[in-house]
Amino acid sequence: MVPHLTTALTGPLLELERCFLDNATSIEAWLRQQWLDHMPPFYGSVDLRNAGFKLAPVDMNLFPGGFNNLHESFLPLCVQAAQSAVERICPDASKLLLVPENHTRNQFYLMNVARLANILGHAGLKVRIGSLLPDITEPTTLDLPDGQKLTLEPLVRKGDRLGLKDFDPCAVLLNNDLSAGVPTILKDLDSQWVIPPLHAGWTTRRKSIHFAAYDRVAESFAKMLRIDPWLINPYFGRCGKIDFHERVGEECLAAQVDATLTKIRAKYAEYGVEDQPFVIVKADAGTYGMGVMTVRDASEVTGLNRKQRNKMSVIKEGMQVSEVIIQEGVHTVEQVNGGVAEPVVYMLDKYVVGGFYRVNTERGIDENLNAPGMRFEPLAFETCCNTPDCAQAPDAAPNRFYAYGVVARLALLAASVELEETAPAELELA
Amino acid sequence: MVPHLTTALTGPLLELERCFLDNATSIEAWLRQQWLDHMPPFYGSVDLRNAGFKLAPVDMNLFPGGFNNLHESFLPLCVQAAQSAVERICPDASKLLLVPENHTRNQFYLMNVARLANILGHAGLKVRIGSLLPDITEPTTLDLPDGQKLTLEPLVRKGDRLGLKDFDPCAVLLNNDLSAGVPTILKDLDSQWVIPPLHAGWTTRRKSIHFAAYDRVAESFAKMLRIDPWLINPYFGRCGKIDFHERVGEECLAAQVDATLTKIRAKYAEYGVEDQPFVIVKADAGTYGMGVMTVRDASEVTGLNRKQRNKMSVIKEGMQVSEVIIQEGVHTVEQVNGGVAEPVVYMLDKYVVGGFYRVNTERGIDENLNAPGMRFEPLAFETCCNTPDCAQAPDAAPNRFYAYGVVARLALLAASVELEETAPAELELA
Repeated sequence: MVPHLTTALTGPLLELERCFLDNATSIEAWLRQQWLDHMPPFYGSVDLRNAGFKLAPVDMNLFPGGFNNLHESFLPLCVQAAQSAVERICPDASKLLLVPENHTRNQFYLMNVARLANILGHAGLKVRIGSLLPDITEPTTLDLPDGQKLTLEPLVRKGDRLGLKDFDPCAVLLNNDLSAGVPTILKDLDSQWVIPPLHAGWTTRRKSIHFAAYDRVAESFAKMLRIDPWLINPYFGRCGKIDFHERVGEECLAAQVDATLTKIRAKYAEYGVEDQPFVIVKADAGTYGMGVMTVRDASEVTGLNRKQRNKMSVIKEGMQVSEVIIQEGVHTVEQVNGGVAEPVVYMLDKYVVGGFYRVNTERGIDENLNAPGMRFEPLAFETCCNTPDCAQAPDAAPNRFYAYGVVARLALLAASVELEETAPAELELA
Repeated sequence: MVPHLTTALTGPLLELERCFLDNATSIEAWLRQQWLDHMPPFYGSVDLRNAGFKLAPVDMNLFPGGFNNLHESFLPLCVQAAQSAVERICPDASKLLLVPENHTRNQFYLMNVARLANILGHAGLKVRIGSLLPDITEPTTLDLPDGQKLTLEPLVRKGDRLGLKDFDPCAVLLNNDLSAGVPTILKDLDSQWVIPPLHAGWTTRRKSIHFAAYDRVAESFAKMLRIDPWLINPYFGRCGKIDFHERVGEECLAAQVDATLTKIRAKYAEYGVEDQPFVIVKADAGTYGMGVMTVRDASEVTGLNRKQRNKMSVIKEGMQVSEVIIQEGVHTVEQVNGGVAEPVVYMLDKYVVGGFYRVNTERGIDENLNAPGMRFEPLAFETCCNTPDCAQAPDAAPNRFYAYGVVARLALLAASVELEETAPAELELA
């Protein structure tokens, strides 16, 4: 699709990629079958880590904020996939309200919103943008660096419907992850679609619940392909009652870190991997790479100094961290332009529509690359993710990207299962 | 998508393109609504003619044979659209039997079959190719010019199912237009999907029925946009009892030609068009551009010489022509590399997946370009058809291709209506 981007895929030949390539038809048929039973999220993005011997999702975002990072040659795929998604939510209507994050000064994020509105417009929706910000009291037009303009308008709530002045949409699309809680104005919109549903927001969502669903998806997928599920699945544990300031929960944390490292060591021994095992400790609810720590030994989490404890205890919107997930770290073997690279795959409906590398020249191969305050360079994928080519080597770009698209869709499927299982109606029954 | 193809779009600025561009969101919403009531054909291609003041379909093929002419950068879009089509026919199965035309020496056609099998494979189907040719009695592998191989296998009929040895597919995909009649082996496959349905073949299909359905689609679409439907719809008439050899039906033909030319003249006067009106006379059932004649005056069809009558009386597979359609001719203003160019748009499910120009340096702007024995040069479209760009001129490539994609989808919708109306069950009721 983008013949002239340079990229340096330098990982070792991956048996897993060969396996995906040889079984592409079965994989697609298996996924098709899964989507009969599970409704795909409207959209999503997945952060992957490729260790050469292992390719796994480490984060699944249900409010993707980097559509602007996709190369514009992926736009037609985005539009086609959006048409499919829109059929499900607004088959006979055409107005959609987009509610973004409250970042009015983050030009990159605003370009994401503009790109998303553009894609949905091409798919046949009249899109307008409603802001949760109290200081947006009238239509406010922002200039974007690429010459585009974006107009934010004040939300208008009427009964159980949300809209704008003279704009009554059939659906409300959230591009706001609700880290700060669910605003009252978004609650009880009983006669409109709210997508993703409110319980997909970080107010209620937990990474550990997602990865528990992913465990089952990976197990089932691995069984079909007769591979070890560990090759696509990171171990994890969780601690539910942490207070970093008060040093509450350190024992749980140390025990989970130790248990996870022990399991990783056993797998490394089984596969002859000589890297040093590590885990990532991060907030169970949250995003933006805040409150994240690389840990190589359990002793590291028992004696945290004040600075480390401060760093871990607060995430986006100033939320306190009281639950953490301890996730097997996956080294990344991909390097682009001298920086460590992590693939991010974008999906609309059940389709992979593109992706990019998050490249960070100041971080190591065992560190979180989505760090706050640290600029990463997005590098658009060179080809699409749905056209593997058996005539090429397993690590050729179309085949590597195909493998990324497969694992990303497994995470998307897990998100679908997770959202079904955590839907409020079911919680009430419990 | 294909940034480096050269193409020369030299037509005058088209008001219609501006109208489509300004109303793209409404057009997409309108089409989405239509597809709720009508099932899109599995695939199709539409020949368009762009006269500058008018853009209209002149032929709608339900067994498209030029997937090999699409630039490979369109492959991801094809795969994604095929995934959507496959969901409808084989959601929980994965074997598909492809039955091609009996052209074992036409390398271009064989590359089309290979490309189609490739797309469907990527969409998660195990595709094998069953030949209707009696001399294919065992698997026969053909070498293609691009180094690919294609294996044709003998069909095996068991009860009401068609397959191959050890291959029982969930669906039979026809890429054979049944010009020679419906082979017994394809009849009464009651427990398998046969797509397109048998009545889509030229044994029963009639262009005049398609264009009657198109009349209604164009009427409804034009009403929504408040434009004259003639701008997207060619007039037509038909004669049902023609025998060119015996000179039977000449009066009907002359009368229809005259009536159609009269209507065109009135429209040309209304719009100040100074071109000479013409009609195309062609077989009502048939394909491959055989039995086609450009007529500028009714007197031309009453005194045909033997050679002309021979040419008109026989089409593909030696079928006699007894019914003809008299279709308003649409000049083409598009020229590529000094040749007259006609856009051909390819669709899978309800999605436009690409297209190419049929370029013919030996033909005039009022002649059929798909002539037998005459090589045309396919030139892949430069961009996709689903990403119009308001910031560019209406005749910029993305916008012109968008307009092509809109009109092509109207023809696809008409084909869907046509197939519903001509389905055997409904005929029995009549």
